[in-house]
Amino acid sequence: MSVNTFGRVFTFTTWGESHGPALGATVDGCPPGVALDEGWIQQFLDRRRPGSSKFTTQRQEADRVRILSGVFEGKTTGTPIQLMIENTDQRSKDYGEIAQAFRPGHADIAYHLKYGIRDYRGGGRSSARETAARVAAGGVAQAVLRDLAPGLRITGYMVQMGELHLDRANFDAAAIDANPFFLPDAAAVPAWEDYLNAIRKAQDSVGAAVEVLVQGCPAGLGAPVYAKLDTDLAAAMMSINAVKGVEIGEGMAAAALTGTANADEIRMGNEGPRFLSNHAGGILGGISTGQDIVVRFAVKPTSSILTPRRTIDRRGEEIELITKGRHDPCVGIRAVPIAEAMAACVVLDHLLLDRAQTGGRRGRIG
Amino acid sequence: MSVNTFGRVFTFTTWGESHGPALGATVDGCPPGVALDEGWIQQFLDRRRPGSSKFTTQRQEADRVRILSGVFEGKTTGTPIQLMIENTDQRSKDYGEIAQAFRPGHADIAYHLKYGIRDYRGGGRSSARETAARVAAGGVAQAVLRDLAPGLRITGYMVQMGELHLDRANFDAAAIDANPFFLPDAAAVPAWEDYLNAIRKAQDSVGAAVEVLVQGCPAGLGAPVYAKLDTDLAAAMMSINAVKGVEIGEGMAAAALTGTANADEIRMGNEGPRFLSNHAGGILGGISTGQDIVVRFAVKPTSSILTPRRTIDRRGEEIELITKGRHDPCVGIRAVPIAEAMAACVVLDHLLLDRAQTGGRRGRIG
Amino acid sequence: MSVNTFGRVFTFTTWGESHGPALGATVDGCPPGVALDEGWIQQFLDRRRPGSSKFTTQRQEADRVRILSGVFEGKTTGTPIQLMIENTDQRSKDYGEIAQAFRPGHADIAYHLKYGIRDYRGGGRSSARETAARVAAGGVAQAVLRDLAPGLRITGYMVQMGELHLDRANFDAAAIDANPFFLPDAAAVPAWEDYLNAIRKAQDSVGAAVEVLVQGCPAGLGAPVYAKLDTDLAAAMMSINAVKGVEIGEGMAAAALTGTANADEIRMGNEGPRFLSNHAGGILGGISTGQDIVVRFAVKPTSSILTPRRTIDRRGEEIELITKGRHDPCVGIRAVPIAEAMAACVVLDHLLLDRAQTGGRRGRIG
Amino acid sequence: MSVNTFGRVFTFTTWGESHGPALGATVDGCPPGVALDEGWIQQFLDRRRPGSSKFTTQRQEADRVRILSGVFEGKTTGTPIQLMIENTDQRSKDYGEIAQAFRPGHADIAYHLKYGIRDYRGGGRSSARETAARVAAGGVAQAVLRDLAPGLRITGYMVQMGELHLDRANFDAAAIDANPFFLPDAAAVPAWEDYLNAIRKAQDSVGAAVEVLVQGCPAGLGAPVYAKLDTDLAAAMMSINAVKGVEIGEGMAAAALTGTANADEIRMGNEGPRFLSNHAGGILGGISTGQDIVVRFAVKPTSSILTPRRTIDRRGEEIELITKGRHDPCVGIRAVPIAEAMAACVVLDHLLLDRAQTGGRRGRIG
Repeated sequence: MSVNTFGRVFTFTTWGESHGPALGATVDGCPPGVALDEGWIQQFLDRRRPGSSKFTTQRQEADRVRILSGVFEGKTTGTPIQLMIENTDQRSKDYGEIAQAFRPGHADIAYHLKYGIRDYRGGGRSSARETAARVAAGGVAQAVLRDLAPGLRITGYMVQMGELHLDRANFDAAAIDANPFFLPDAAAVPAWEDYLNAIRKAQDSVGAAVEVLVQGCPAGLGAPVYAKLDTDLAAAMMSINAVKGVEIGEGMAAAALTGTANADEIRMGNEGPRFLSNHAGGILGGISTGQDIVVRFAVKPTSSILTPRRTIDRRGEEIELITKGRHDPCVGIRAVPIAEAMAACVVLDHLLLDRAQTGGRRGRIG
Repeated sequence: MSVNTFGRVFTFTTWGESHGPALGATVDGCPPGVALDEGWIQQFLDRRRPGSSKFTTQRQEADRVRILSGVFEGKTTGTPIQLMIENTDQRSKDYGEIAQAFRPGHADIAYHLKYGIRDYRGGGRSSARETAARVAAGGVAQAVLRDLAPGLRITGYMVQMGELHLDRANFDAAAIDANPFFLPDAAAVPAWEDYLNAIRKAQDSVGAAVEVLVQGCPAGLGAPVYAKLDTDLAAAMMSINAVKGVEIGEGMAAAALTGTANADEIRMGNEGPRFLSNHAGGILGGISTGQDIVVRFAVKPTSSILTPRRTIDRRGEEIELITKGRHDPCVGIRAVPIAEAMAACVVLDHLLLDRAQTGGRRGRIG
Repeated sequence: MSVNTFGRVFTFTTWGESHGPALGATVDGCPPGVALDEGWIQQFLDRRRPGSSKFTTQRQEADRVRILSGVFEGKTTGTPIQLMIENTDQRSKDYGEIAQAFRPGHADIAYHLKYGIRDYRGGGRSSARETAARVAAGGVAQAVLRDLAPGLRITGYMVQMGELHLDRANFDAAAIDANPFFLPDAAAVPAWEDYLNAIRKAQDSVGAAVEVLVQGCPAGLGAPVYAKLDTDLAAAMMSINAVKGVEIGEGMAAAALTGTANADEIRMGNEGPRFLSNHAGGILGGISTGQDIVVRFAVKPTSSILTPRRTIDRRGEEIELITKGRHDPCVGIRAVPIAEAMAACVVLDHLLLDRAQTGGRRGRIG
Repeated sequence: MSVNTFGRVFTFTTWGESHGPALGATVDGCPPGVALDEGWIQQFLDRRRPGSSKFTTQRQEADRVRILSGVFEGKTTGTPIQLMIENTDQRSKDYGEIAQAFRPGHADIAYHLKYGIRDYRGGGRSSARETAARVAAGGVAQAVLRDLAPGLRITGYMVQMGELHLDRANFDAAAIDANPFFLPDAAAVPAWEDYLNAIRKAQDSVGAAVEVLVQGCPAGLGAPVYAKLDTDLAAAMMSINAVKGVEIGEGMAAAALTGTANADEIRMGNEGPRFLSNHAGGILGGISTGQDIVVRFAVKPTSSILTPRRTIDRRGEEIELITKGRHDPCVGIRAVPIAEAMAACVVLDHLLLDRAQTGGRRGRIG
């Protein structure tokens, strides 16, 4: 199968480079008869779009999506949906040095070693622009989930940026879309702004951690043992540019816990089992239990910084390099809508895969 | 494709339940002409085997592997290799309560909700006994890597158990196989023993963190953007029972770093690029760079504990449950050889996949 | 994915060689809660079993299947089902010449050229014994279809053996299982017996053509454009040993037809569309229409014959070779139950895949 | 995996409808560093293009391909190659009757039954226009094969059209591209023209048979038992619109042969084994032997004819239907370049897959 395809039965295949004429995603396996238009998908792209605040790259891309196939008279037909985004701001410039040098922390050297050739313009295929295609695909998934799992809701937000951590006592979902950090704590926003401004002025960048919450996810999704729901979520998040760690529920902190502390005890609620805690992050044995699914991941600091770093070029010459250009001081911010999109695709994929095997019937309790 | 298959071109499919007659793995895509026998694979299984110390389950399983196909006159033939392990110690017992109750932290309730039926004997398919099959498959991968990547070496070890952390200043690879914790610090072993004994006596269990180091990995492995090497490693580790988090290089700590601190600067060494640090964990843009690959993951504490926990049964009745039986107080320990096996399979799979696309040629520097 | 795996969501992976200790199939993606035991599967194996008449190999194999996993208390659990068949009659003999020589028409030379090593005992992996594993997997598919598509019926039969053709005017389904040829014409059986006896006495073998009819197949199965139902059926049949051609409906004869003759006109029946003919073989645009599905394929004559043929050996020496042993004079006969098994797997796979995408809903007419 | 993806390691995913804004193919797994431009691909598209003779549809499509990704400075980069063809001649018309009625022999009714919705404009996704995308993908495969298998040559041609058969005694490869039938017999062209003109004037259409010859194919391609070379070729051809049968070597005629007649005897040639005949069509046990690969398939007559046929509409009303429009009287003609493209993709895919497993080494003889 294509190494640029994600998913098992609801799949998408992305294509395109940062500075090529266009990029896009081919979504396949989509249920037919689902209402879908460009406006619906655009709302997801707009959340990710560069240039939306001073904390994201000033590259001006409309990121206008076109549906080229698979939708007829406003509904999906069950055939492949081609989502194309044309690159409009491919600023013409001299790539002289970047074309030859390997920027530290970037994929430049790895692509060169593997392929012997690389599209050096803006990082080519390794650019985070590829994630626009994922977000568009996620928009399709969200349209289907709206029909098939009406109570399901996917919410991403920042929980850490460098030294700053979300104070969970202040968690307020309503705040998330009202600040440039996707931060669920309005009161903390000024401090985050000051911090990131300082980072930027220091010609530096900073890492971040993002959490995605899936509420209302049906029980029974996930197919042990190599298509576990957490396995696929981990792959989904780790495939996002610059991600270095993924956690489910307690995540790495589980290493410090005892079994008595970690057990999510169960009582009987009105509508089925009721868990007294959620250390597991909503997944047991690779299968969703109906609890909230909690995924968290870390994004490394933007590698493109104005502070000079030592590196080499293709001839093997040792040089110092400053990466000019329009770069986010914290790429983790824009990872929020990308991660929501990936989560939507994983959940829908497993909802359909489960429907294939079990017909969506559920074992009863009581 | 089978949801119980792992891999892209070098694949394995596992089957079997904890208390069924046997379990195993079907390895496919293996290069032909590689020397392989049961003894070679057995050495890997013996490292994972239960009953090998007082810190692992006292279930006595020989875990004797049989090669049923794919090997002829001591060499692989290129056809599927069936590795079967018979279950010998399926202790006959009364499963009455477990058959009806859902053990907290276990997959019991998730399997019931998904399938409406479950093999409750020892956890059935969700038991960690499945990992014996992975270790056997990993043994095949190690045999092939020995031929195709002679300098490559995969080493797993514990870096944390509950409150105890490996002191990296004392790192000594030679110590790893000389203590029951796969701990690369001989001097710390007595403290770890005391700690785990106390946990056990308290009828409790504890989590752990494991690190896997891949040294001598060729550059160029990994296929962006959904078959990245780190993506597949994350999926590999997250698919192991009880794993809740996976990290590459800096992992979750990357969220706290600045770009200047995180940059792995590059100089020119005698045999190619030389990195001055390894925050990236050996992977850039999803492709190996030739640096050491560093993967780390957290294992939650064993859910089966003798301390009573609140739960429900199939009728929806609220009960308290003690999970008797022969359980590891820290399942993270035995995750070490399992993780090595998964790493071996991922690396070999990508070595072959890369050979398909690029023929194994590498872009030159200098 | 494993090259020894067939299917998309209902999958099976076969393993094993002709003269190894065992062979088998790992069935995955099977719906849970389906009644299944060894006796059910055995009935399918018994139809294919060697030694059942003088027209099939006299190798005496019990072909006794064991279910090693995936079934609990008589029902499928949704986890992988391991079906193992031990080889009992691995007649010890001197393989001296066969080990070195390439039998004409056999895979010997191809395996040697590809892998550089081959298990020459009885053809190793290329032996038709592999098909026992498919038949076992097909038995699982038949058990599921019995539940999910109660009116569906799969019937295979011979339509040609060498110079003899089935006279369709005499078609009698009841006769199929009452003669050694799976021939739906009892009156023709003596002539077929005489013909094949003559072939055998001449130390020769002969080809055959087999047809499989799927009645009661729901409309809507098949996923254009590369998972068309006819595409997957063609792959399924062509993957059977010795098959050289596959036809759907009119098959190769469609080349001679005009559009007016070939059109399957449609009228309205009591329960939906009623087709006035079935040139299409039940599939339009890769999707089942509800008509009978008609698949036909040709099997080449057994390559192992007692008449000497010219060939070479590994050293490149030119020799003449007689293939002794216990060989079917017409391997096409035993292809009947194998083809039924493959058809069952394809249809079930698509039924589940369609359930994933469409939920099994159907567009209405009228 | 996407049901609109073909291939295992060299893959392509097609998208687009007959009358949508565009259609295309995403080619993935392509080796890097291969010279490729739009002109190279265009030559393959031009062979398939409608409107090139009076025997093909008069729809005027430039079928101008654009490469949107994966190629940089005239060479492939190893990343996905997006090939887009815009639809220019989407003749505006009233689809009133076609929108409601099911054309006999077309996929209309099948799509309706499966999806409950269909893009009825020109057949939507089920239109043969989809094959333009395959031909473009095949052009990429041909560019890679030019590098990796320089002696390999793929040639398609007509062997039958209705009552007319190619006289193989007159076979002349040079004639193929010099007549509108891809017929390797210049002398027969006038008779074929007269025949097809008569068919067209009778407001009818006619079927055809096409053969594809792969010369210079390396031995060792194909991966038993479910990725056999002939299995994948059968799937490739059967997935082409209107194909009803596929044959390898002797094909269906093998049913009539005896083992003595069918054996391809082997002698030792200067450069390895030399086969005295080629009943097998170049493939034994699913693996290429180095002989010419011979694939043949039948295409049913165009279903769109001007002669009225009985059918029903969505309301279940019985009607008579004439399919107006610009239709080929023999769609089999344009299947020739499509089949060549599919053959190129299959052979390249297996060449890379074999390189993954065996490294391309070959077992020696002599």
